[in-house]
Amino acid sequence: MLNQQDVLIEKANILIEALPYIQHLAGKCVVVKYGGNAMLDERLTKKIMQDITLLKYVGVNPIVVHGGGPEINKTLAALNIESHFHNGLRVTDDAAMEVVQMVLTGKINKDITAGLNALGARAIGLCGIDANLIRVVKKPPVNGVDLGRVGQVVDVNTKLLKFLSEDEYIPVIAPIGVDEAGNSYNINADTVAGVVAARLAAEKLMFLTDVDGIREDPADPNTLLSCVTREQAEGMIEKGAIDGGMIPKVRGCLEAVAAGVRRAHILNGTIEHPILLEIFTREGIGTMVTTSEEGEQWSTGK
Amino acid sequence: MLNQQDVLIEKANILIEALPYIQHLAGKCVVVKYGGNAMLDERLTKKIMQDITLLKYVGVNPIVVHGGGPEINKTLAALNIESHFHNGLRVTDDAAMEVVQMVLTGKINKDITAGLNALGARAIGLCGIDANLIRVVKKPPVNGVDLGRVGQVVDVNTKLLKFLSEDEYIPVIAPIGVDEAGNSYNINADTVAGVVAARLAAEKLMFLTDVDGIREDPADPNTLLSCVTREQAEGMIEKGAIDGGMIPKVRGCLEAVAAGVRRAHILNGTIEHPILLEIFTREGIGTMVTTSEEGEQWSTGK
Amino acid sequence: MLNQQDVLIEKANILIEALPYIQHLAGKCVVVKYGGNAMLDERLTKKIMQDITLLKYVGVNPIVVHGGGPEINKTLAALNIESHFHNGLRVTDDAAMEVVQMVLTGKINKDITAGLNALGARAIGLCGIDANLIRVVKKPPVNGVDLGRVGQVVDVNTKLLKFLSEDEYIPVIAPIGVDEAGNSYNINADTVAGVVAARLAAEKLMFLTDVDGIREDPADPNTLLSCVTREQAEGMIEKGAIDGGMIPKVRGCLEAVAAGVRRAHILNGTIEHPILLEIFTREGIGTMVTTSEEGEQWSTGK
Amino acid sequence: MLNQQDVLIEKANILIEALPYIQHLAGKCVVVKYGGNAMLDERLTKKIMQDITLLKYVGVNPIVVHGGGPEINKTLAALNIESHFHNGLRVTDDAAMEVVQMVLTGKINKDITAGLNALGARAIGLCGIDANLIRVVKKPPVNGVDLGRVGQVVDVNTKLLKFLSEDEYIPVIAPIGVDEAGNSYNINADTVAGVVAARLAAEKLMFLTDVDGIREDPADPNTLLSCVTREQAEGMIEKGAIDGGMIPKVRGCLEAVAAGVRRAHILNGTIEHPILLEIFTREGIGTMVTTSEEGEQWSTGK
Amino acid sequence: MLNQQDVLIEKANILIEALPYIQHLAGKCVVVKYGGNAMLDERLTKKIMQDITLLKYVGVNPIVVHGGGPEINKTLAALNIESHFHNGLRVTDDAAMEVVQMVLTGKINKDITAGLNALGARAIGLCGIDANLIRVVKKPPVNGVDLGRVGQVVDVNTKLLKFLSEDEYIPVIAPIGVDEAGNSYNINADTVAGVVAARLAAEKLMFLTDVDGIREDPADPNTLLSCVTREQAEGMIEKGAIDGGMIPKVRGCLEAVAAGVRRAHILNGTIEHPILLEIFTREGIGTMVTTSEEGEQWSTGK
Amino acid sequence: MLNQQDVLIEKANILIEALPYIQHLAGKCVVVKYGGNAMLDERLTKKIMQDITLLKYVGVNPIVVHGGGPEINKTLAALNIESHFHNGLRVTDDAAMEVVQMVLTGKINKDITAGLNALGARAIGLCGIDANLIRVVKKPPVNGVDLGRVGQVVDVNTKLLKFLSEDEYIPVIAPIGVDEAGNSYNINADTVAGVVAARLAAEKLMFLTDVDGIREDPADPNTLLSCVTREQAEGMIEKGAIDGGMIPKVRGCLEAVAAGVRRAHILNGTIEHPILLEIFTREGIGTMVTTSEEGEQWSTGK
Repeated sequence: MLNQQDVLIEKANILIEALPYIQHLAGKCVVVKYGGNAMLDERLTKKIMQDITLLKYVGVNPIVVHGGGPEINKTLAALNIESHFHNGLRVTDDAAMEVVQMVLTGKINKDITAGLNALGARAIGLCGIDANLIRVVKKPPVNGVDLGRVGQVVDVNTKLLKFLSEDEYIPVIAPIGVDEAGNSYNINADTVAGVVAARLAAEKLMFLTDVDGIREDPADPNTLLSCVTREQAEGMIEKGAIDGGMIPKVRGCLEAVAAGVRRAHILNGTIEHPILLEIFTREGIGTMVTTSEEGEQWSTGK
Repeated sequence: MLNQQDVLIEKANILIEALPYIQHLAGKCVVVKYGGNAMLDERLTKKIMQDITLLKYVGVNPIVVHGGGPEINKTLAALNIESHFHNGLRVTDDAAMEVVQMVLTGKINKDITAGLNALGARAIGLCGIDANLIRVVKKPPVNGVDLGRVGQVVDVNTKLLKFLSEDEYIPVIAPIGVDEAGNSYNINADTVAGVVAARLAAEKLMFLTDVDGIREDPADPNTLLSCVTREQAEGMIEKGAIDGGMIPKVRGCLEAVAAGVRRAHILNGTIEHPILLEIFTREGIGTMVTTSEEGEQWSTGK
Repeated sequence: MLNQQDVLIEKANILIEALPYIQHLAGKCVVVKYGGNAMLDERLTKKIMQDITLLKYVGVNPIVVHGGGPEINKTLAALNIESHFHNGLRVTDDAAMEVVQMVLTGKINKDITAGLNALGARAIGLCGIDANLIRVVKKPPVNGVDLGRVGQVVDVNTKLLKFLSEDEYIPVIAPIGVDEAGNSYNINADTVAGVVAARLAAEKLMFLTDVDGIREDPADPNTLLSCVTREQAEGMIEKGAIDGGMIPKVRGCLEAVAAGVRRAHILNGTIEHPILLEIFTREGIGTMVTTSEEGEQWSTGK
Repeated sequence: MLNQQDVLIEKANILIEALPYIQHLAGKCVVVKYGGNAMLDERLTKKIMQDITLLKYVGVNPIVVHGGGPEINKTLAALNIESHFHNGLRVTDDAAMEVVQMVLTGKINKDITAGLNALGARAIGLCGIDANLIRVVKKPPVNGVDLGRVGQVVDVNTKLLKFLSEDEYIPVIAPIGVDEAGNSYNINADTVAGVVAARLAAEKLMFLTDVDGIREDPADPNTLLSCVTREQAEGMIEKGAIDGGMIPKVRGCLEAVAAGVRRAHILNGTIEHPILLEIFTREGIGTMVTTSEEGEQWSTGK
Repeated sequence: MLNQQDVLIEKANILIEALPYIQHLAGKCVVVKYGGNAMLDERLTKKIMQDITLLKYVGVNPIVVHGGGPEINKTLAALNIESHFHNGLRVTDDAAMEVVQMVLTGKINKDITAGLNALGARAIGLCGIDANLIRVVKKPPVNGVDLGRVGQVVDVNTKLLKFLSEDEYIPVIAPIGVDEAGNSYNINADTVAGVVAARLAAEKLMFLTDVDGIREDPADPNTLLSCVTREQAEGMIEKGAIDGGMIPKVRGCLEAVAAGVRRAHILNGTIEHPILLEIFTREGIGTMVTTSEEGEQWSTGK
Repeated sequence: MLNQQDVLIEKANILIEALPYIQHLAGKCVVVKYGGNAMLDERLTKKIMQDITLLKYVGVNPIVVHGGGPEINKTLAALNIESHFHNGLRVTDDAAMEVVQMVLTGKINKDITAGLNALGARAIGLCGIDANLIRVVKKPPVNGVDLGRVGQVVDVNTKLLKFLSEDEYIPVIAPIGVDEAGNSYNINADTVAGVVAARLAAEKLMFLTDVDGIREDPADPNTLLSCVTREQAEGMIEKGAIDGGMIPKVRGCLEAVAAGVRRAHILNGTIEHPILLEIFTREGIGTMVTTSEEGEQWSTGK
């Protein structure tokens, strides 16, 4: 049985284990996509906020991108705004867009920001409208269907993100874009995370999801892949081994890696402290999506 | 009849008339409280956005504080959230607070921000939650009535406001505060404007309202006062000559002036370009609330 | 008939019209060549000083280059210094040079500087001697005639000009150069303006003259050209359509444009506020000399 | 039994426990006195180096002061330099001083520096001679005995210490002082640590010793005091409860606290990670010496 | 006889002798008043320029104020402008003022500037007009006589002088002032030097004159005083031992010293390298005017 | 016979002679290798310290690299540590390395540093261990002989050297390197000087030795070469005209020059003020090693 002091020393040893990872990431940018199911459990959410705040305090520059999740549908329903669909694609009309924006930027974004700040961080909630952070154009019709107020990213105001994140602030970004005329648009949050990481040449991009990562056989948890290369991932999408909501995440990873992000990860955000587990342990967790060369190195140790 | 060139020269002369005012305000902070009825007319709103953008580009550092107005009630109604009242005071319960925050920070705040940015500004929408911009405590019960989620300002993060407004950005502030635990609270926007101006020792604080200013006789538009001192204003509140929604504005002016703001103004925001009219013309518009000494000087010219 | 308030609103609208031009020029360098006949009328001179001061206060970085004009001849005459000519070319001997320098740097330069500063600017009068601002070599004999103390520019101290003009100062430059040994030389002011604009890659170079611009037919004011390309201008010089004192101005424009200045203008400095008219109106005034590509765009709108 | 993931989560929880302490110390200066017996065990030494390196990487500015210990005597003996004593006080003659300086600055100082740098720190070994870091005068005779080359601190070059420690460097200071003429002197390392902490108004001063702290009854380990006030400590010195090598440490603490250092600690440097245990756990370890007021607060929680 | 190498070593020893003086003056401001007879001999002038350039390069921040001398009268005469006198006081009418300004700022100022720059300095010629460097009001009538365009200093733009002299530039100032309306005025150069030194709290103020300093008996060169206190100097003015052109210099010294300048000197500018002789030798030259306390210290060594 | 004032003026003339050299070297880096016999005479040493301090104060950035000399052998002997040799090459075992490090970094380095600081400099003694200033790997066996703790330079922390030397400090470097694991190694000081100068692209590298420079005929002092090109120097090494301790110095020069150092010099450090003689006189002293092109220019004047 360990006495009191041995317990403390064991704790100190664990802090020291984190040192090389802290040293490696010092002053670098890490983009965390956080959303959907990962934000449903308040207790887990707090642990993720702690992870991000700790990152900031040990010298890393985190940037948070969040998604929407069930709140939007709940509010749409409460306001009796029906969602229209054309051939299975949801259409964001002006009434829906107003709600989407209110919920994303006025509720979820501010809740995350308040959660971080209550832990001593200095997070600032932003959306693409602020200083034209995310410039978009209206997405062209898909299969002839006009999707309404859905945007396609054309530019990111990286100057603002550096101004804030290289100072004492943590930017928290809601996935709303703005066009030249000042109209706002809905954007896929995974895409926003990928583009932001790519434009900032972030050191890491992390998608917090509700699965452990990519599985070779989606049905078999024992087939979790700790690392997939670009080619592997594209093959898996093609043959359907990656599908559904996982596709934009994997695509976000691939695009970010192609644009210079060193490592992109798909993690399970429904366990405790997923960010710290990935960053501060030798093994990491989840699936790392990477270029072929990096993938090869990986096989010989993180 | 003026020919083309004479018209242009006349325009140039008007630009030159603005020069001494531009010189006087260069590098100084001007807080604009904008809200309520002043934001109902889209055409007028655009002109106010133009005024603020022009201020920024001629070297002034504007900060915008906005209020809520009818949007909140409209959304509360659409969501079937009833407002409770105790002895005539409205109580903000948790359900109402969620809506208030969504509408203020997710709709009105972002609309103003988008409006400014569409004109070439780089506005950033903030509320008291962001980097704990406005720290509050819960307002104590008034006459024994717990008003719910209504806050009382205890601190302003002036460091963040200077960081942004002395750089290329225009902060746009929604009147939401946050307590130590991260809970958000509703605050009177006029109070926020007054406190922000006071803490920044702003050069000017401007309340855009729907009246021309303070009248000696509220019923008689010909009794508009262009300047009232602290003592006069307090006397008028006491004897009821100033009442209703004008009280928090006048109080905001008085507190700001007492705290070092040079001049506080109550203007009609429902005319075109009220900010430019006040700032860039010799006569100014509206009512200036000021200390006694300043009031005396005023009588001999602006 | 407009009432008082409508007049003020009209003035505000005119200020707002200037906003896009202010935004476009923010932080950019504009070189103004001012001299000769344009400086004879004190009332007009003051308006030009106002234009330059306004430019500085709305965030543009103006640099003024001035010429000499009749003052030099007047002082030479008063001192009984005869000007010698060889084959029609004036020769600047040492005695004349002393007078030229005194009048340019001690009278005209300081008068312009004082005029700007009386309007609230912080102008600093300089000549090529100051910190070796304009390094010259003696001009080689022209057609065998030694022109005496006439210089040919070999270098410009752009570091000093940026140090001052990117801070709060407006450099006002007299066209005197200096050689390695510290001897001063007379230089054509148009040439100085062109070289300074070129070395600083200024956004604009403006020659204030006493004509409206370049005319297709010099005799016919209705043939004013609002834009000429390099090729057109060279053709016109060749066939004599541009001649006399206009040649160094057009050449200054062409060289500056060739060296990276975006737009070079020849304006009438004898009307009121010519600089504001050119910069802050959609139509502009005078003739713009530009590269061919820019010229083509021009035809479709400024 | 914990599975692999639970073990990792437990580690992450321990990192998070450190967050409030990291936040509290961010950007602050911590002076660590390290020496004597605490540096004999190479394995423990490495753990102390890890603690200091971790401090630096989580945003604290550590400064290390070290002592000498047995190395000096070993080298003096190897060189057959006898130590002279007068009435029990050791006299540092010139020959001994040369050895003291060589061992302190050329061996111990560089070993600590190399140890830190091998862990990824950027430590710089200094002594009082470097940029006149520690200015001394010769200590006056004690009881009529001239102690030779023993110095009394008169000034500390805090500018250099801030220049280095507020940048990426960790200063490591050997207790050698220098007089105006450039002669070096031996100084008590505990005194140096106290003076350096005092002049920098450090947040913390930590003495790593070979005992657990101050005991009420020196003979009874169960009487360890976790906090003593100035008055208590002075009383204990007077009545002999604190004696020997503990006296300069306690005095160093008292002087530092009197000069503005917030908290001074006496810790056992022969256990693992003593610095992290003190800083990053709620209970801390060792004895804190503090002012009376702070001592009172202490009784109600750290 | 010294061989070649010994001669060189002797030279090196002389450089080393200057080291303590260089160290003492590093980064400090030294104002040199230079004018009148001291600038008549071109060979001596060059040596003074060398002194000033050397000062700049060894880390001192010199500022030069110059006077006018015979050039003004020569040009007035050549232009047939008569000087009017009332009761022995010269009246500067507008015509004379124009000449005074041209000669001072356009000839003498630029000649000194060119002389310094030919030696590798980066001097900038200024007068009170530039950025309103020296603000004056018209001097009130003296004994009922209106002296015309003669100014009394009310403000100095020390910001500009620091901006230039703490960077790589040497300001060279002509004694012309400017009033609010932009009119220029003649000012006594000694007064300008004194005021500039006082406002900058210069380390030294040096008047280069054509006498060796203040003599106890003006007629006897052997009675040169190396140091006089404020009281002594005032006594000597009262009893007439200091008179004529020496009075404004001594007054300039006294005012500067009273305003915080450490040492003010009256030197003979007609010997070679007077500035270096004063600054870089133990004995110094000329007379130092100082406060009483400093005077006392002086008696025991420089 | 010169009177007092003429003597002073002569001194001032000598200061002025140094001006062009001071101007040329302003802000540039000069590396001085100082060691061995040149540091035996305390009086001469002080003069070299003066030279280096003067350089710093006139705006040059000197960096000192020193060697070891007889002190090391003396201390090894006193400690009865025998030096082992294999085939004439000395082997540095661990015991010897400890002494080498102590003497170099704890005695010689600190003595030089103290000497400079006593003259008013702010020198900081460093070795390769400090902030990993000189990274080495163990030198591979030479002719099959393992030389023990002898290092080969692989990297220099130029960031630290610039951080200190471009601020107010003079780095003084002992020739000790460090490997990745934190072990220290002995390195040839001449090599260190050459590498440091090369990596910093220093303006000058100066080896202070005990000979006048390179002689065409080593036996004949009249054959001193004031300049040799790379090719000449290599030819002379090959045919044995340069040998012994001169070889690493000449190689250090050649490598430095090849890497971008403008001029490398071999000087006699046993005369007074060798650094000033080389830098501040037209003729210079010693032998300059240079590229061929520079060598050709040299023949026509320094």
